[in-house]
Amino acid sequence: MKYLGVLCVTLLALQAKSAQAACGYESCHETKSNMVNIHLVPHSHDDVGWLKTVDQYFYGHKNNIQHAGVQYIIDTVIAELIKNPDRRFIQVETSFFSKWWSEQSETAKEIVKKLVNEGRLQFTNGAWSMNDEAAVNYQSVIDQFSLGLKFLDDTFGTCGRPTVGWQIDPFGHSREQASLYAQMGYDGEFFSRMDHNDKGRRMADLALEMVWDASESLDIKLFTGLLYTYYWDTPGFCFDVHCSDDPIIDGNSYDNNVKSRVDDFIAYAAQVAEKFRTNHIMIPMGGDFQYEDAEVNFKNMDKLVKYINERQSSGSKYNIIYSTPACYLHSVHQSVQSYPNKTQDFFPYGSDSNSFWTGYFSSRPTQKRFERDGNHILQVAKELSVFADLNSEEQKEKLNYLRQIMGVMQHHDAITGTEKQAVSNDYDRLLSDGMVGGTNIARDALRKVTPLPTGEFESCLNLNISECAFTKDNADNLAVTLYNPLAHTTKQYVRLPVKNENYQVTDDKGRVVASELVPVSQQIIDLEFRETDTQYELVFKATVDKIANYYVKKVESQSAAQPIKAVKSVSGETREDGETVVQTSTIKLTIDNNSGLLKTVEMNGISENIEQSFGVYRTYDSGAYLFRQYNQGDFVIQDGGVEFTVYEGSQVKEIHQVFNEYVSQVIRLYEDRNTVEFDWQVGPIPREEEFGNEVVIVFSSEIESKGVFYTDANGRELLKREKDKREDFNSELDRQPTAGNYYPITSRIALQDSKKRMAILNDRAQGGSSMKDGQIELMLHRRLVRDDGLGVDEVLNEEKYGQPLIARGKVYLVLNSAEESTSAEREWEKEHHLPLWKFFSKNSGSTSSPAKSVPSFDDFPKSVHLLTLEPFNDGEVLLRVENFMDHTEGNVVSFNIRPLFDYLNGEEIRETTLDGNLPLSDMKRFKFHAEGSGVRGSEPEYYTSAHKPLEVTASQDPADFAVTLKPMQIRTFIVKTK
Amino acid sequence: MKYLGVLCVTLLALQAKSAQAACGYESCHETKSNMVNIHLVPHSHDDVGWLKTVDQYFYGHKNNIQHAGVQYIIDTVIAELIKNPDRRFIQVETSFFSKWWSEQSETAKEIVKKLVNEGRLQFTNGAWSMNDEAAVNYQSVIDQFSLGLKFLDDTFGTCGRPTVGWQIDPFGHSREQASLYAQMGYDGEFFSRMDHNDKGRRMADLALEMVWDASESLDIKLFTGLLYTYYWDTPGFCFDVHCSDDPIIDGNSYDNNVKSRVDDFIAYAAQVAEKFRTNHIMIPMGGDFQYEDAEVNFKNMDKLVKYINERQSSGSKYNIIYSTPACYLHSVHQSVQSYPNKTQDFFPYGSDSNSFWTGYFSSRPTQKRFERDGNHILQVAKELSVFADLNSEEQKEKLNYLRQIMGVMQHHDAITGTEKQAVSNDYDRLLSDGMVGGTNIARDALRKVTPLPTGEFESCLNLNISECAFTKDNADNLAVTLYNPLAHTTKQYVRLPVKNENYQVTDDKGRVVASELVPVSQQIIDLEFRETDTQYELVFKATVDKIANYYVKKVESQSAAQPIKAVKSVSGETREDGETVVQTSTIKLTIDNNSGLLKTVEMNGISENIEQSFGVYRTYDSGAYLFRQYNQGDFVIQDGGVEFTVYEGSQVKEIHQVFNEYVSQVIRLYEDRNTVEFDWQVGPIPREEEFGNEVVIVFSSEIESKGVFYTDANGRELLKREKDKREDFNSELDRQPTAGNYYPITSRIALQDSKKRMAILNDRAQGGSSMKDGQIELMLHRRLVRDDGLGVDEVLNEEKYGQPLIARGKVYLVLNSAEESTSAEREWEKEHHLPLWKFFSKNSGSTSSPAKSVPSFDDFPKSVHLLTLEPFNDGEVLLRVENFMDHTEGNVVSFNIRPLFDYLNGEEIRETTLDGNLPLSDMKRFKFHAEGSGVRGSEPEYYTSAHKPLEVTASQDPADFAVTLKPMQIRTFIVKTK
Repeated sequence: MKYLGVLCVTLLALQAKSAQAACGYESCHETKSNMVNIHLVPHSHDDVGWLKTVDQYFYGHKNNIQHAGVQYIIDTVIAELIKNPDRRFIQVETSFFSKWWSEQSETAKEIVKKLVNEGRLQFTNGAWSMNDEAAVNYQSVIDQFSLGLKFLDDTFGTCGRPTVGWQIDPFGHSREQASLYAQMGYDGEFFSRMDHNDKGRRMADLALEMVWDASESLDIKLFTGLLYTYYWDTPGFCFDVHCSDDPIIDGNSYDNNVKSRVDDFIAYAAQVAEKFRTNHIMIPMGGDFQYEDAEVNFKNMDKLVKYINERQSSGSKYNIIYSTPACYLHSVHQSVQSYPNKTQDFFPYGSDSNSFWTGYFSSRPTQKRFERDGNHILQVAKELSVFADLNSEEQKEKLNYLRQIMGVMQHHDAITGTEKQAVSNDYDRLLSDGMVGGTNIARDALRKVTPLPTGEFESCLNLNISECAFTKDNADNLAVTLYNPLAHTTKQYVRLPVKNENYQVTDDKGRVVASELVPVSQQIIDLEFRETDTQYELVFKATVDKIANYYVKKVESQSAAQPIKAVKSVSGETREDGETVVQTSTIKLTIDNNSGLLKTVEMNGISENIEQSFGVYRTYDSGAYLFRQYNQGDFVIQDGGVEFTVYEGSQVKEIHQVFNEYVSQVIRLYEDRNTVEFDWQVGPIPREEEFGNEVVIVFSSEIESKGVFYTDANGRELLKREKDKREDFNSELDRQPTAGNYYPITSRIALQDSKKRMAILNDRAQGGSSMKDGQIELMLHRRLVRDDGLGVDEVLNEEKYGQPLIARGKVYLVLNSAEESTSAEREWEKEHHLPLWKFFSKNSGSTSSPAKSVPSFDDFPKSVHLLTLEPFNDGEVLLRVENFMDHTEGNVVSFNIRPLFDYLNGEEIRETTLDGNLPLSDMKRFKFHAEGSGVRGSEPEYYTSAHKPLEVTASQDPADFAVTLKPMQIRTFIVKTK
Repeated sequence: MKYLGVLCVTLLALQAKSAQAACGYESCHETKSNMVNIHLVPHSHDDVGWLKTVDQYFYGHKNNIQHAGVQYIIDTVIAELIKNPDRRFIQVETSFFSKWWSEQSETAKEIVKKLVNEGRLQFTNGAWSMNDEAAVNYQSVIDQFSLGLKFLDDTFGTCGRPTVGWQIDPFGHSREQASLYAQMGYDGEFFSRMDHNDKGRRMADLALEMVWDASESLDIKLFTGLLYTYYWDTPGFCFDVHCSDDPIIDGNSYDNNVKSRVDDFIAYAAQVAEKFRTNHIMIPMGGDFQYEDAEVNFKNMDKLVKYINERQSSGSKYNIIYSTPACYLHSVHQSVQSYPNKTQDFFPYGSDSNSFWTGYFSSRPTQKRFERDGNHILQVAKELSVFADLNSEEQKEKLNYLRQIMGVMQHHDAITGTEKQAVSNDYDRLLSDGMVGGTNIARDALRKVTPLPTGEFESCLNLNISECAFTKDNADNLAVTLYNPLAHTTKQYVRLPVKNENYQVTDDKGRVVASELVPVSQQIIDLEFRETDTQYELVFKATVDKIANYYVKKVESQSAAQPIKAVKSVSGETREDGETVVQTSTIKLTIDNNSGLLKTVEMNGISENIEQSFGVYRTYDSGAYLFRQYNQGDFVIQDGGVEFTVYEGSQVKEIHQVFNEYVSQVIRLYEDRNTVEFDWQVGPIPREEEFGNEVVIVFSSEIESKGVFYTDANGRELLKREKDKREDFNSELDRQPTAGNYYPITSRIALQDSKKRMAILNDRAQGGSSMKDGQIELMLHRRLVRDDGLGVDEVLNEEKYGQPLIARGKVYLVLNSAEESTSAEREWEKEHHLPLWKFFSKNSGSTSSPAKSVPSFDDFPKSVHLLTLEPFNDGEVLLRVENFMDHTEGNVVSFNIRPLFDYLNGEEIRETTLDGNLPLSDMKRFKFHAEGSGVRGSEPEYYTSAHKPLEVTASQDPADFAVTLKPMQIRTFIVKTK
């Protein structure tokens, strides 16, 4: 009984009959209908890494970089909440909270549970991190919400479940995020960054709050509110220990300032109240890493509340209460107002006319790609964990670790590339650890579900530079196990780094599979940090349902693979007129011999002049966040002088192009693959003393796109963009005509005219635009000379292996008739996002029947994506399926999951909200009225699930297991197993 | 029951059977005899004003100046102490604590009492502020300790009583302070600033701890320890919310640093342990305004303690405990070691060979004087409160307010003049308020104890510039009430600003008193901010036991006062050779007509060539703390060119001298007063862009002092100084030969040879020295151009009334035979410190018998000072008497206090420690052995009172009321009244 104090707090806290007995909206303080109700919302914005690493922030380590210690924030907030039941606090980042929770005594946990059960501590947003909305893929957003909400549900039950989104810091807001919130049953979301002109217009029109049509395919609406002044404190009222605003001095002192402080606060509240439609206003009290000494904050807020409300007795019409975003939203909902409609999104974010936050769409390109690799192995590991029924504590821990770091990576200073270099390095380390754990899980599973019970199942994470010691050293006799995370059987070309030898590839059934040896580009070979000397890749086409094994062995015979040869090479000395044609049976490319550039593309029955090259923005004061041109003239697209060599194999055709000392590319065609692959390498980008360089890939066609182009939102729906235009306000682009037209491209950008359509698909998030009709550009890599003054205080000038960063990646071109469905682009997207994962083992020759089988999902309709299949609670599996075609591309589809249910040895299924934690039948969301959407009632209204939630047990008829998905619909099921 | 949490803490805390049941040394954690015991001492050093005002520090106001909020420090420390009974904290500044206490609920108070009763919160030092030791007078130090300790005693009883002095920040240490500690029953004191050479030598000799012989007259010894590294945290281990050192990270993290942190701490502890004699070391954990977020500090210290002690199981010999200075000292005392002896003091403080902290001895001369005025009215108000038996709440409150602000003024950044200008202004405001309260109290009392029941009893605080609207406007018919705070009847000249009219002065009995009208110096008249046009002062000699009234009226007759006339005037044009003699019946001065300077002084049968002038140090990087010469040549004493005018009256002779545009002086002699008064005025001091000027007054005699001079310690005992010498170490004065020879002069500096002695007495604290044989200098005023980089971050460049500060003051010269006793100097000191206070009323002509009488103290022996007479608890009076002669000047004296006891209507008397709060019979102090002081025992020893404490009741024989005082002895009694 050492910690008497704490013990005593608990006992009495538990015994006491408290004023509040309920959580959620019932725990909200009463408001006054005849007054302006000020909802004071104490909160702390705790970045999951930014200037410091996640752990440095948690422990308060390296405070010389930034003073921030989350452990103390939660410690002291809890202590302060105990002191006064009127107080409220919202906890946002579940990654931090769960780490804190793990260090608490049972006694402390009981206290916190009581606070949660009484609505005094309210989880808000609740995801693992506060994710970025530009560079993230929806799959990872869903995952990180599921992870956070599951922790809260497991720990606190429904009282721990957030009902409001709180994306107060991300630098622009996607419609897809709003859609996901709605699908998780959230009542609304709040954020605080919006284009300054948009905000100005909305201030004038009382339109800071709105009803967002969050999908063009689904009928999803979400109440969305912009905070009046970002998310920091009311000016002059930061009571935090790290602030310097005046405290409330109510003692016997010359400095007593109660009157002036109350006057000032009410004046501010009056100003805010003018801009909102109801008699409720929300005033957040917090900021970055505030509340480390929560006593200071709450002591002063208590006084503020006391003295403001005391004025009511002398006629003041201001009522102030401790509140939360949820309680505020509840009050707003009760007020039954109507709100303007919103249909597009909030990109790009211009904080002033010279500051468009569009650089971060592309910053840290290799980190952005690495995150995608993380998701890739995570999905593989999840599915395999289910199939192999992995359930050791170590395996569960490793999977959870990977889930968690992927949650961290979605953070708005992680995948965005807006963190300090040291933090980026830490993310790399964490993610690398997590991925190794993921590959270990996969290995454990593959030993059960493949006929190779002792296989090594090595993963090579550097295949993009053709580096894999395992394949190089064991290609004499190698087993290649390919895992397909997608639902449907896929055919993909597999490339393995090997020595210059003769190899033969056979499939599971011993059949020889055509293969050939393809030279690696000279630019890869020249990479100094590459830890191999292989110069060739063995290429063969694999067909994989979920898992397939291929076997490679060294042979002497003629039938074996042979290196394909260069058929043409053009450099400065051999420059000539004319053109070079490279083609497969479906695609024909023409290269201009003189310039060395791609000139025309012919595919899908369409031919188009597409000149493809690289351009460079020479910028002065761009930064990790901002893409900012100093002079519009400082942009040059290379128009010639490209050296190239053409390699032609039977299955692969490659055009190796060298643009200059730091830009090169392989244009690649595979037989039977209806897309042109551009395998680019950029770096080290040269840097002048005063100017950085930002490199874009450019596709210039003659398609008459008339300023219109399409970009994806987080890899799901496409949004129509119109150059120089904004949905809700007049654009102000004279200072930054390019940066202000940049949008986040996380999977696809396209344009078209009445005849032709060109789509570019990418392999990671990038910024992109169409600055000229028919032209598409994507920013690939940035090397800068200045910090942009937004806090990171470091120049984005990545180095790796002792030299400026070299980035590699791929974009894909699809040219098609404008009349054709874009569904093929969708399929490419899925395959690029979740391609085959390759595992390598020595081929011992001995195989045995797998201990466990792996099901096929080929019976799912083509448009159905196996979005998630993962272990949930013990004895439970989460299944998430998506119709990934939108309303223009696909139709309603139905399919039956009884076979899967049986495979899983299912007992019952419950359908849940998107995150997996709330039974869908329990979902009840606030409904808000859009202006002009018809007569509104006088009573608050609610949404419940639009379809009947699936709730079935093993004893029911198979017909009851039918699942129907409208275009873009996602449904989530928890399968309880026997 | 709103604050459930707190309530619950209390109830259980009160009910719980705690491990500790006792306070004081019994509450100390156990140590291990076979290990190095590390006493970890959590503390916060909270300046009672410095960069911010007292209230700004308390409330955490103006944090942009300095982040500091004492209310939060105490709040959070208490919360943290509750959590873990092992934890300890010391509270030092009672001014802050009492303010905090006044805002607490009864519940909170109960909790704190429990913590105090268990020794978890220990008051240390406990005075109202942590007083300076150079510029303070002992009377005010005693007062501010009495005030602080009384608050603690009233609030917590004996468990609240500090036993250890904690003067960790003051810039040098006086022997008198040590003496006062011992007289208050303290067991020892700790501080952290010491001349760097002294410290270096002591480090080498294991002499950082010592036994200080704190008095030459009294047998008083005090254990004194220097902290190993100032009072700030162990390097690298500042866990405070405002620090950035690494926390202890013991979680599952890449950043886990338990091993390295423990290694580092133990390495540091080992280093400390080498320099101390016992197996105990004290490591303070704190610093300026730390613990605002005490959770951070204690959470990490808990871990430090845990992991350091965990090592013992693997052989570590380090044992760490939460401790306090008292517990550390207790362990040291138990160890029965012996320590080197110390007899002098720790002035000046040289932090390096170029940084002597001797500027602050003189910084802000008017503030230093104003503080003396505050003490003056405080003593007057205290005595009068007793005589008039004032006991309304308002009166008690006003008196307490004045006591408190005087406590604040003793702070080591208040009276030192080392605070920011805005803070100095706040001190002025507070002190002015307090003094107005004091004069109000005096007025209330005087209406009872004088025959003027309706008198105004106005005080004029600007008499030093001859400004008093009341006397000017009412001199036609004025009552002047003179209050003598001293014990014995005094004869002093009174000066009143009046118009140029004819006045007659009469005494209480209607007898005409000789008076004359004396012109005010032209420099006073020329002061632009002076709010009067009076040019004359009416001067008369008053004789006052405790109170006397004199009456002034305007008359036409010849017998009235007439302005005295100038008898000689020498200026540039009229310069002549020869000399001018000015003399009274006892003193003869000669002025050199050519230079205009004082040339010889003849008094007490001694004649000496004393040239008196002013000098200027032209300095570059002096600051508020440091007096630092850039070039030794930049010091010039003015040797001529002084204009002077001589005024001769029958009682007063004045030589008005003008040295230059900003230095002037009146040398003044009064009939029957055996001292030469130098009434100086300095300012506005000119300032060059790169150089400031520091003005000294210089007396150059031919006395062969051989480098020896004497300076007082806080107005009590004199210490012998030897130019360029130090008691315990080799001085290092080549860079700053003058600054390094400066000492604080709070009342007196003297030098002598075998025949003659010259003493200079001052009216406020100043720095002074004797840089040449026979020469004495005192620094009067400083105007600087740079900050000295020690934190205040402002140039000492005072302005007042829109121009650089003009300072005025007085020094007094006493020339005597070296064989004569210096007791006369003592008497002058007392009179200069507590002269007559003048109250003015309109003389209505109507008088009545006083309601209360005022006793006479003339029966006390001449050497007995009425040090304190003040209301204590209700129905109690504190009497403090002092034999103010030292062992060379006086003898043991006895006197009887029964008459006073009877006057007070006494019931009983108890004798207490110096501060008034601990019965002397209860005092039991640690006794430590000085090296070479004979055989030391093996058991810890203690001191108790050396004399039998006086404890008498009204029924006892008058003989029992005899009080004996050895030279320099002070005794304190609480008289309980009926």
